[in-house]
Amino acid sequence: MTRILVLHGPNLGLLGTREPGIYGRLTLADIDRQLRELAATLRVEVNCFQSDVEGELVSRIGKSRGVYDGLILNPGAYTHTSIALRDALQAVETPCVEVHLSNTAARETFRHHSFTAAACIGQIMGFGAASYALALTGLVEYLSRKREP
Amino acid sequence: MTRILVLHGPNLGLLGTREPGIYGRLTLADIDRQLRELAATLRVEVNCFQSDVEGELVSRIGKSRGVYDGLILNPGAYTHTSIALRDALQAVETPCVEVHLSNTAARETFRHHSFTAAACIGQIMGFGAASYALALTGLVEYLSRKREP
Amino acid sequence: MTRILVLHGPNLGLLGTREPGIYGRLTLADIDRQLRELAATLRVEVNCFQSDVEGELVSRIGKSRGVYDGLILNPGAYTHTSIALRDALQAVETPCVEVHLSNTAARETFRHHSFTAAACIGQIMGFGAASYALALTGLVEYLSRKREP
Amino acid sequence: MTRILVLHGPNLGLLGTREPGIYGRLTLADIDRQLRELAATLRVEVNCFQSDVEGELVSRIGKSRGVYDGLILNPGAYTHTSIALRDALQAVETPCVEVHLSNTAARETFRHHSFTAAACIGQIMGFGAASYALALTGLVEYLSRKREP
Amino acid sequence: MTRILVLHGPNLGLLGTREPGIYGRLTLADIDRQLRELAATLRVEVNCFQSDVEGELVSRIGKSRGVYDGLILNPGAYTHTSIALRDALQAVETPCVEVHLSNTAARETFRHHSFTAAACIGQIMGFGAASYALALTGLVEYLSRKREP
Amino acid sequence: MTRILVLHGPNLGLLGTREPGIYGRLTLADIDRQLRELAATLRVEVNCFQSDVEGELVSRIGKSRGVYDGLILNPGAYTHTSIALRDALQAVETPCVEVHLSNTAARETFRHHSFTAAACIGQIMGFGAASYALALTGLVEYLSRKREP
Amino acid sequence: MTRILVLHGPNLGLLGTREPGIYGRLTLADIDRQLRELAATLRVEVNCFQSDVEGELVSRIGKSRGVYDGLILNPGAYTHTSIALRDALQAVETPCVEVHLSNTAARETFRHHSFTAAACIGQIMGFGAASYALALTGLVEYLSRKREP
Amino acid sequence: MTRILVLHGPNLGLLGTREPGIYGRLTLADIDRQLRELAATLRVEVNCFQSDVEGELVSRIGKSRGVYDGLILNPGAYTHTSIALRDALQAVETPCVEVHLSNTAARETFRHHSFTAAACIGQIMGFGAASYALALTGLVEYLSRKREP
Amino acid sequence: MTRILVLHGPNLGLLGTREPGIYGRLTLADIDRQLRELAATLRVEVNCFQSDVEGELVSRIGKSRGVYDGLILNPGAYTHTSIALRDALQAVETPCVEVHLSNTAARETFRHHSFTAAACIGQIMGFGAASYALALTGLVEYLSRKREP
Amino acid sequence: MTRILVLHGPNLGLLGTREPGIYGRLTLADIDRQLRELAATLRVEVNCFQSDVEGELVSRIGKSRGVYDGLILNPGAYTHTSIALRDALQAVETPCVEVHLSNTAARETFRHHSFTAAACIGQIMGFGAASYALALTGLVEYLSRKREP
Amino acid sequence: MTRILVLHGPNLGLLGTREPGIYGRLTLADIDRQLRELAATLRVEVNCFQSDVEGELVSRIGKSRGVYDGLILNPGAYTHTSIALRDALQAVETPCVEVHLSNTAARETFRHHSFTAAACIGQIMGFGAASYALALTGLVEYLSRKREP
Amino acid sequence: MTRILVLHGPNLGLLGTREPGIYGRLTLADIDRQLRELAATLRVEVNCFQSDVEGELVSRIGKSRGVYDGLILNPGAYTHTSIALRDALQAVETPCVEVHLSNTAARETFRHHSFTAAACIGQIMGFGAASYALALTGLVEYLSRKREP
Repeated sequence: MTRILVLHGPNLGLLGTREPGIYGRLTLADIDRQLRELAATLRVEVNCFQSDVEGELVSRIGKSRGVYDGLILNPGAYTHTSIALRDALQAVETPCVEVHLSNTAARETFRHHSFTAAACIGQIMGFGAASYALALTGLVEYLSRKREP
Repeated sequence: MTRILVLHGPNLGLLGTREPGIYGRLTLADIDRQLRELAATLRVEVNCFQSDVEGELVSRIGKSRGVYDGLILNPGAYTHTSIALRDALQAVETPCVEVHLSNTAARETFRHHSFTAAACIGQIMGFGAASYALALTGLVEYLSRKREP
Repeated sequence: MTRILVLHGPNLGLLGTREPGIYGRLTLADIDRQLRELAATLRVEVNCFQSDVEGELVSRIGKSRGVYDGLILNPGAYTHTSIALRDALQAVETPCVEVHLSNTAARETFRHHSFTAAACIGQIMGFGAASYALALTGLVEYLSRKREP
Repeated sequence: MTRILVLHGPNLGLLGTREPGIYGRLTLADIDRQLRELAATLRVEVNCFQSDVEGELVSRIGKSRGVYDGLILNPGAYTHTSIALRDALQAVETPCVEVHLSNTAARETFRHHSFTAAACIGQIMGFGAASYALALTGLVEYLSRKREP
Repeated sequence: MTRILVLHGPNLGLLGTREPGIYGRLTLADIDRQLRELAATLRVEVNCFQSDVEGELVSRIGKSRGVYDGLILNPGAYTHTSIALRDALQAVETPCVEVHLSNTAARETFRHHSFTAAACIGQIMGFGAASYALALTGLVEYLSRKREP
Repeated sequence: MTRILVLHGPNLGLLGTREPGIYGRLTLADIDRQLRELAATLRVEVNCFQSDVEGELVSRIGKSRGVYDGLILNPGAYTHTSIALRDALQAVETPCVEVHLSNTAARETFRHHSFTAAACIGQIMGFGAASYALALTGLVEYLSRKREP
Repeated sequence: MTRILVLHGPNLGLLGTREPGIYGRLTLADIDRQLRELAATLRVEVNCFQSDVEGELVSRIGKSRGVYDGLILNPGAYTHTSIALRDALQAVETPCVEVHLSNTAARETFRHHSFTAAACIGQIMGFGAASYALALTGLVEYLSRKREP
Repeated sequence: MTRILVLHGPNLGLLGTREPGIYGRLTLADIDRQLRELAATLRVEVNCFQSDVEGELVSRIGKSRGVYDGLILNPGAYTHTSIALRDALQAVETPCVEVHLSNTAARETFRHHSFTAAACIGQIMGFGAASYALALTGLVEYLSRKREP
Repeated sequence: MTRILVLHGPNLGLLGTREPGIYGRLTLADIDRQLRELAATLRVEVNCFQSDVEGELVSRIGKSRGVYDGLILNPGAYTHTSIALRDALQAVETPCVEVHLSNTAARETFRHHSFTAAACIGQIMGFGAASYALALTGLVEYLSRKREP
Repeated sequence: MTRILVLHGPNLGLLGTREPGIYGRLTLADIDRQLRELAATLRVEVNCFQSDVEGELVSRIGKSRGVYDGLILNPGAYTHTSIALRDALQAVETPCVEVHLSNTAARETFRHHSFTAAACIGQIMGFGAASYALALTGLVEYLSRKREP
Repeated sequence: MTRILVLHGPNLGLLGTREPGIYGRLTLADIDRQLRELAATLRVEVNCFQSDVEGELVSRIGKSRGVYDGLILNPGAYTHTSIALRDALQAVETPCVEVHLSNTAARETFRHHSFTAAACIGQIMGFGAASYALALTGLVEYLSRKREP
Repeated sequence: MTRILVLHGPNLGLLGTREPGIYGRLTLADIDRQLRELAATLRVEVNCFQSDVEGELVSRIGKSRGVYDGLILNPGAYTHTSIALRDALQAVETPCVEVHLSNTAARETFRHHSFTAAACIGQIMGFGAASYALALTGLVEYLSRKREP
């Protein structure tokens, strides 16, 4: 059975309680539960992990090799500063989709560049919690397409 | 009934015949047909238009006001150079999703910046033809969410 | 009789219907009519043309040689990206005034540089529709001053 | 009665005697007299002041609050270096038009950026002494438009 | 009772033993004790925490919401590289003062930019251990001023 | 028989009538006739096309695939701004030579960079109308060399 | 007795009357009086001086040598443009604290760099009028510490 | 007896299993064993530590003071982003050699700059696992030279 | 008789008393006296003026036209920031030599660019007070050479 | 009889033996012989010179004045770094054509700028050894055109 | 027998006599003799060559092909400016190690970039004369590893 | 007796014959003779050397140590590109004056930066051949001042 690891980066543990007018009232637990429900529909398995520590995210990616078929990564603020995350993704070679809740292209200039995106197969941003669902759908389809001759 | 306009930018008319090893054997007509089929499932209407001319895309966006509820735009190379397209999107204020077949973040540096993205609600890139389908799904969901109180 | 060509660039056809709180309720047709009325007072002839297509504006400038005595150009978003418009102005050598409805110096950084301005005799910006009227007044005065020994 | 303060920046006291082939034979006194004549026609009052000292221009703007209804400012070389003048304009909130005799966009690169323009309602440049007259016309019209409900 | 969280970033645990000629002989424990004494005088409560790990500082800020009334943050080297800390500060919206022992503006160019400062109410730098005391004084005063109508 | 498409970009339709002191008295029709005469000598066929519209040049390149063996392109001002033209050249993979009448390296800085050159086999610039003739000679030789085992 | 010179830069004379919603209703005279009261408590003497003219501030700093033991400087907009003020501070070698009412790190990019800060012992910003009081406290403490063996 | 601490940064735990065609089949344990063998020959003691977490590397360096005579550091991706590691090295003043398996100068531009190198006595890169051995040899020689009068 | 105006910029009034180890014990009065003695030898007249105010230096240059045959200008810190001084020099067209006591090319990067130098006939820097004497010698020779047919 | 000097820059002596798959099997001697044969056809004289030393190329250009009617220069890597070669070309004013075997615009970014091109009449690049032949043809034609009234 | 060419760039002939406090008392002859002794131990042959002339170093590298198995290059100041040396190394494809006496990463910014490093297998810097010995050891090991299947 | 070495860089051997309208009719031999005559007056010895080869100038500087008391260097175009010359000057520590015939600050931007100036005691530029005479005068004075206690 296809297995997907979902990684949430720094500050994402605050979802739901912070600025609900902007980010909605969904907590990270809500998002994870929705993803597991969608995963059941798509007949794949999903595991979720959150950390504020860059190196822990790096380690998790490193250990995903041979265990997971695909990754969904919301690197949060580390998107713009972390070469280590990029290296981890390139080292394990597991297909990864980069996800953002907001449309980072419409925010401050220093959020326009992503170090991690170049090591992913694609990006989805701007749809709020729905960004994750679209990513899971797209990733599962990508993996099934790759498996076919 | 919700109406969506899909706009394909420069060089996208060559799809299917050019570099099929990379871009696949789907033509733009194939993509448009798939989108219409998906639209039927989602109970929305989709119209598609392709042009190599920046100004024609600008005009089409300008005339979409009050006629379409949402836009899906693949600006192709104009992504990185066209302030006119950005202005058009901001003027009509119709929600738009930016779409790319390839993951532009993994290509040349001059493809890393998008002028149009800041005037969109979100971006989806790197899933090939499936980028459009994910965009349509995401956009329809966005529009229905906005409609609800 | 002195003849002036007024050229409106991309997205200007949307005036009046878009963001009337900011741009006012005047349509482009209203502005053109006001300019023709002012022209009658100044005893000059005015023709107006709008296009969203950079190349059509280039062609119009190219054909203005020997037909028009002066140009008023609102290049819209092409102000910041079009070397072709600059080249056209330099080729025909007809005196041109650059016009903007808004004060572009108070907007995003990428709107602070103008490629076309260096090929004009002057610029007027920030007075809304009145920018055109001031430009016509200034251009007619410039042309009559040049004609005198 | 509407009152307008005209501020001339550094080196403008040399007008008329310096490079008359370029700048014409009008002295600053001539320009001021022409402005007062035009003001009489427009039924407004105009006062003129020149200084080579950035801080004196800053002080004059600071003291204009509640005394003048509008400002016309030719910041000369301080256009490109003075954040203090920009701050002064933003502090008093009196509507200001930036004026230049020459078309600075066609000169050295370091003259292409204006610190003061972002704190003005608009700019007029390239018409020689006539730049001031156009500015006065435009400013008076702006003030009367703002006054009407 | 007003509660303040003091956060010390990377390498600050070495204070007192390292380069005492420059940084003085005070250890971090000495600074924390002085702050608690000052806090007693000001009738507020102070808690102190040091970590070399960026993500742990992020987590601490995230958990401070609703627990602390104000933050004092010396981000050390993360000042210049951490967007995650900036995001954490903006997410919790607790008023924060940025503190530096040395005057970073007089050091290497890469220390002149602060990512975190834009998410703080103010900064104090260059007074050695006294920077913290001034920050506590200023923050308490800020909080009492905000509380009053 | 080898077939070559010659594409002239914006403002090139003005040749001969504009600044004859610099660009000579040859019109674009003259250049095209000279190219056809040289083509006859080299036993190849040449077709010429001019447009001021970037998108029309893009379309022409797109349709040249399988019809033409080589391209000669003078992108004019679009040289420095058009990623769309570069993409079109890369998509069709037809060998192309970039041509300029003047030596762009000796003009303004913004003319020193070419987006299209990287998608060409070579460039020839600075020889006036003769640049085209040298390009045709070089391109025909290149094509015959490629054809040989 | 320790003597401190407080220098206020351009536009600071407008305090209290301008944008009271942001800057509060305190005038510069109020701030100076508060500082003198605090000085009395600290048993030091304080003199205050305001000028909009960069060169007058330079002269005042130059003449402060041997007369004052410390300086408190709010350079206003000259912070970002004045090398002359920096040179003056370095020439007299009197310890100086740079002060800002607002948190300049949270404003426009051109306000993020300070020329003068590198010639100061420290900076305090963002506390409104209280920035001055904190600066005086910190400076007096610094001077007494320096005096002790 | 001379004691050396070897620090391996992020992603280095993956060695041997990842891309063995490029990085060889040696695991990090193999490298550490080889280093201990070489250390025995050189009559020094070597301890090795790996972490993906920047702050843990910072802490280890901080605690190395007075315990170790020299450091060998492969900062991995943190080379290019970590000012905290640089500060840690400068704080402890223990001689350090920077090591890289690959020749970072021949990779992406963002890998050409090292924040840590300026705080080291030297760098060795490009020799694969042998880089560590050369570093140990050079460092031991450096330490013995420093010890001699 | 040839007349030369010597202009000393900001902070130069502090010479002799400040950092005598670096700048020597000569005061500005000493330098001026030495220049007058050298002038007597060269049979020219020299007048000296110092100001910390940029605008006063601008005014002095403006009034020098027709009164002085040559200028010697040490713009101090205004060298690197003043476009107004450059404009003044270009307006009066009196030959000017730029002088610096120190070798600015060996100091901070922001001192490597001179706005005023491009409006001078030459520069002399790095010889301390002797820079002025060399400048006077060179300027007088330049003026006598220009006068000869 | 028209005389042309052909100058080959650094590393060009290695042609034929190095990377023959890319650069072909022609040696520099082969190219020179082909040029002399073409020269005979065109009834001009050609002399060839190769040096790896920048200064020797500078000297050769300096001595070419009055001896040669035209220059063909392949500056190799000095294209991008040598202002001395540019100065030499501008000093002798002999018409020069810059030649490159490869299309430098399609290589690393640091090869996109040419210091020498601005001192040449034109450039030809990307045709391999044929670049030289095209340059000779173009240069001879240019010289004969210049000679005619 | 393996043959190694050691190349010393500009100013290295001055070693031993210049700044012995920094660079030690070893002359270049001493270094060469030490290298030959080490070579004897490693059973390889070493030849040494010094030149201040960039082009002579280029020529030497060009002629090394087929004669030497490896290169050790200290390009001195040409490290940062010479594309010609980089091209030479890439042309001959002989494995090369870049060597520096000092740690260039800890010196001026313009010494942080190396043009030559990208054409080498690795770099060793900061160990003084020992840098060469480490390079020879590493290079010989690299060559023997490459030779084995 | 004081001994001075005068070094002329690339293209300076062409003086007198090239562009005499600008550079005058003096040849380099004339300048050298004038310098020797002035040297006789000042009772110092002068030797002159010209080379187009950067490395030969480097070598000459290297050998000047202990032989010459001072250097006068016109690095020509190498001013802007040669770190090797800068290193040579710093290695020998002989006082050097940089000289330019023209005012390089008034020429192209790439001539505004000097690598060599930071290793000189001062610079003199813009006085034509007289620049050398002023440099010799200033240098001799500098040396005699240094010699005195």
